[in-house]
Amino acid sequence: MGLFSKDIKTLDDLFIHTLQDIYYAEQQIAKSLPEMIEKATDPQLKQAFQTHLGETQQQIQMVEQVFRLHGHDPKGVTCPAIDGIIDEAQDIAGDVEDKDVLDAALLAAAQAVEHYEITRYGTLSAWAKQLGRDDCATILHQILEQERATDQKLTRIAESKINTKAA
Amino acid sequence: MGLFSKDIKTLDDLFIHTLQDIYYAEQQIAKSLPEMIEKATDPQLKQAFQTHLGETQQQIQMVEQVFRLHGHDPKGVTCPAIDGIIDEAQDIAGDVEDKDVLDAALLAAAQAVEHYEITRYGTLSAWAKQLGRDDCATILHQILEQERATDQKLTRIAESKINTKAA
Repeated sequence: MGLFSKDIKTLDDLFIHTLQDIYYAEQQIAKSLPEMIEKATDPQLKQAFQTHLGETQQQIQMVEQVFRLHGHDPKGVTCPAIDGIIDEAQDIAGDVEDKDVLDAALLAAAQAVEHYEITRYGTLSAWAKQLGRDDCATILHQILEQERATDQKLTRIAESKINTKAA
Repeated sequence: MGLFSKDIKTLDDLFIHTLQDIYYAEQQIAKSLPEMIEKATDPQLKQAFQTHLGETQQQIQMVEQVFRLHGHDPKGVTCPAIDGIIDEAQDIAGDVEDKDVLDAALLAAAQAVEHYEITRYGTLSAWAKQLGRDDCATILHQILEQERATDQKLTRIAESKINTKAA
């Protein structure tokens, strides 16, 4: 989370810090998706990435809403985890020559991103509830469900065609 | 995956590369767990980390078995994703003063690690099957189920006590 841990004294501090972490992460994801959309060959995969870009932009606004509900200005902190995950995705997007193998690699990279989001929104939603912020928890849980649905959609696309085409 | 993408021409190449990625990741996880065990205060959380260290050591051997079944020597490649995830965990493990808040942070960090493993083993298991390596797929699926069970156990510990103690 690129944090100064000494500043984290309460669960509330930890909640805000993790919210800053995912806010930064969502922005990095929004920046990286256009390249993935461009590189993807399969129309259904390309469309899934396109849809996820729209959702990501919407989720950034939802996270901003959580910040404000909780009395904080939206702010990001560098998150080495998402940076690492996206670095891997970009390495892959670089120049695997075979288009079908590249699609399989891009899809796997996108699922790694999804799982990072799933774990963070799961945690944030539980912490918000614990802190008595049911309003924040509701929004965070909505995002969590969107991420889970995207991950499941990607699994379906992988199993129904992408992996077969790549093999 | 710290890879030279140009060397990846087939799904088989991508499978081996991702196996090398998770092999490195498991080793980094095994190295980082002792510090998390030491830092955790709650006995049930400490025990869960201890159990996961044992499982991780066993999983390293299972991944080695997959390499050999598929005719390759076990080898790791630097994985920026797990390095980033562990960096965040170590930042947190650094010096959050309140022991209960630290436990909540450690637990969340461990779940981020689990989700990285879940996404990679899910992908690897599907690719192994696609490549006609049901023997490898079976082992990879066993590891996947262990990771999912660990993640669910951590969620139960979080919801039943850690989050309440931290609030």
